[in-house]
Formats: sequence, structure tokens, C-alpha cells
Amino acid sequence: MFIEGKNAVRQALEAELTINKLMVDKNVATHRDEIVSLAQKKRVKIEYLPKPVLDKKSQTGHHQGFIAEAVDFKYCETADILALANAKGEMPFVVLLDGIEDPHNFGAIIRSCECAGVHGIIIPKNRACQVNETVIRTSTGAITNMLIAKVTNLKNAIDELKESGVFVMAAELGGENIYNKNLNIPLGIIIGSEGFGVKQSLRSYADEVITLPLKGKVNSLNASVACGIVVFEILRQRLK
Amino acid sequence: MFIEGKNAVRQALEAELTINKLMVDKNVATHRDEIVSLAQKKRVKIEYLPKPVLDKKSQTGHHQGFIAEAVDFKYCETADILALANAKGEMPFVVLLDGIEDPHNFGAIIRSCECAGVHGIIIPKNRACQVNETVIRTSTGAITNMLIAKVTNLKNAIDELKESGVFVMAAELGGENIYNKNLNIPLGIIIGSEGFGVKQSLRSYADEVITLPLKGKVNSLNASVACGIVVFEILRQRLK
Repeated sequence: MFIEGKNAVRQALEAELTINKLMVDKNVATHRDEIVSLAQKKRVKIEYLPKPVLDKKSQTGHHQGFIAEAVDFKYCETADILALANAKGEMPFVVLLDGIEDPHNFGAIIRSCECAGVHGIIIPKNRACQVNETVIRTSTGAITNMLIAKVTNLKNAIDELKESGVFVMAAELGGENIYNKNLNIPLGIIIGSEGFGVKQSLRSYADEVITLPLKGKVNSLNASVACGIVVFEILRQRLK
Repeated sequence: MFIEGKNAVRQALEAELTINKLMVDKNVATHRDEIVSLAQKKRVKIEYLPKPVLDKKSQTGHHQGFIAEAVDFKYCETADILALANAKGEMPFVVLLDGIEDPHNFGAIIRSCECAGVHGIIIPKNRACQVNETVIRTSTGAITNMLIAKVTNLKNAIDELKESGVFVMAAELGGENIYNKNLNIPLGIIIGSEGFGVKQSLRSYADEVITLPLKGKVNSLNASVACGIVVFEILRQRLK
């Protein structure tokens, strides 16, 4: 995976992503350049190349003289998430994303989940945002501390969770008030997509539907904000 | 204020923003065009113009044949927010934004506040994102249902709130655990900016600092997500 542009490369270096090498425009970045220094400190291999070579390697066309070659993100399995919870001696706390498409939302969700102590996130292979450079950048480092499983079918993952004694709830309109529910249990929470919420087929597959009470007239929450509110309500109950 | 591009214009029309007129490329939009129909239904004046005229009026250069001239957003005063709470017979619930700069964050915050029953949002005149087209679009209509006061100095606004018996808390690291606090009181919450949180000068000016407990290693929440979690915790306590 290539990460391009000054800011993105700096953030990738700071986020402790595994970077194979940094390619820099030899006419732009001197040895005293801030990003080059950072890469040296992180013991990243640096190649000084002529601009036309970088231009040819660039996938975005906006490298600004800096392209980092990062190790592709390594997804895990649903079982790894359950094993982490087990190793920590905690009740499983899993988030399933039903088709989040915006990389900024996905990145913000990873941040919130990391803060709330979620053990792992499960995403579908198709029709959903995968871990890409924007997601990594938006997660501001949280991704290095979060297990993410990519599955062919969310239903199979739900089966696997249920078989391990995990209760699966869909966060969606029309369910029970989340604030009246005991969430201090082994829990998987399905968060819906930006436009369509949790798909009907998954909603009926979940053990239960829970809903945030809304007091406005327009009543439309951003998907990553809704996820943040839900995972922090779970954290609140668990800390009690 | 100009709103440009197919999607933005459609959303503005759907969001019931006050639109003076819609200018369309006479070679692009026929009478049967979906957006033109919507504008007609909303009784918005429509002008069919040649493309070069639209190109000249366009501020973004990406009008796609549609430019809506909307009434500039009308800010209110802090007193109006307190008056609304009073009229509703509710304890004031106010959010103060200390320098939010990203219009997507500001828009998402407006959505969350609308959902949580916040009476109004106070923003500073300088060094902060103002209500612009992106904010309006990102708020997905919530802005039409939210009072927003723009003030020269947040400290003066805090004074005004305090004089009306409103308790002012800053949401920031290093304070008391939010989940141990009684938030079912007349309340103003200061939310910090993306990069710097709540400024030290405002933090010490608040009655109290409250903090979300964080369980991760990276522990960095997106500003709009943090605001969503805080306002919903206040709503949760108020609904009890």
C-alpha cells in the first residue's frame, strides 16, 4: 500500500504503521527535512529518487515529493477477536459494521471503538469501505491498536459470535430504548450504513434491536457519531 | 449565499432552507428535471440561463448546471437560546464550541445536538468554522431546527449563561468522570477544537471540567463524536 503526500506520510510515520521504505524527491527533501528526520528516527529505509520516478510510482498524482510504501493492513478472524477478549479476561465487546462506505466514518469509528475498549470490528468483504489510506489516516493511529476481521458474510460471523455465547444487538430505529437495556453482557453490536441503517435481513437475524432515544424533529445522526454514542453507553455500563 | 452542484442544491431544497431563487443551465435542466420539479413544488423562483452566465456566477467552479441563491444563515443571540429553553419549560441545555474548524465536524455536531434536544449552540466569531454551505449540507437539515449564536467572545457568553443560573462545564481531559456527575441541571457544555481541545483560559473559566473515561491506548476521539457522546449522556440523565 502506498501512502502519498507530506501530511499523510508524516502521520503514517507518527502512527507507527509498518513502513517498508520511504521514497522522496531528491530535489525536495534534504537530509534536514522534518519527515526525513522522522523516518530516520523510526529506522525506515529512505530512497532519494528523481521526481519523474516518483511521478510514475504515484497512484494519486499528489505525492508532493513523498511516497511511503506501507505493509498492507492485516485483517484477523472473528475467532481472534474472541480470543483477545478471553485473554484479557473481559466479556467480548464486538462491533459489526453493516456496509459503512465513507472512509472518514470508518476511521472515526475505529477511533471511538479503541477509546471504548472494543475488542474488535467485523466488516463485510463486499459493498463496504475496506481499510485504506484514508481510513488509516482518519483513525489517527487507533488502527494499530484494533483487530479488524473481514468476512464474506456478516450472518456467518453473527452465528460464530452466538455460538460463543455472545448476544448480538442491532442499533437501529424502532427497537428498545438502549438506556433501559443491560449491556453489561458478552455483546456484539451491529451498526448500520450511512444511508440505509442495518439491513432488514440482519436486523431480524440479531437477538434484539436497540435504539437511541431522539428528541429532535430532524433526528438524523451521523453513522460514526451514532456508533460512538452506543459503544460509550456500553463502556459506561461496564465501568459501573 | 450560493449553493452549487446537483446534490447540494437538491439537499438544500429538501432541507427547507430559504432559497431566493434557483439558477439552472437551460441546456441541462429541462422542466422534467427532478431538481427543477422539486423547486417548483417548493415554489422557488427558477431562472433558466446559458452556461457561461452560470460559470461566471459560480464561486466553486463546480455548479453542474445548478446554483441556488439561499438566504444567509441567521444567527441568534445567547438570550434567544435561554428564551427557547424557558418557553419549552425545560432546563437550559447549551453547547459552546471552542474553535471547531472542520465544517463536516460542525455539521455533524449540529445533527447530534438536534437529536439530543440541545436548545442552542454558541460559536465564536473568529478562528472557528462559521455556518457555510458544507455545514448546512452536512447537518442534513438539522440546522433548520437549531439556534446558533455567534459571539465575539465566548467568555462573555459564559458570563451570560452563569448569570441565568446555567452551570458551565468544559469537556476535556483531566477532569471528573462524566458518568459520576449529575448533568440533570441547567447546563452549558464547552466542546474543544479538533487539534487543541478546550483552551486553558476557557477551561479555568468553566465551573467544572468533565472527562469521558477512555479505555484504549491511543485514546483520541473525533471532536464531533466526543460531542455526540457527551450530549447523549446529558439526554440519558434527563430522560431518567
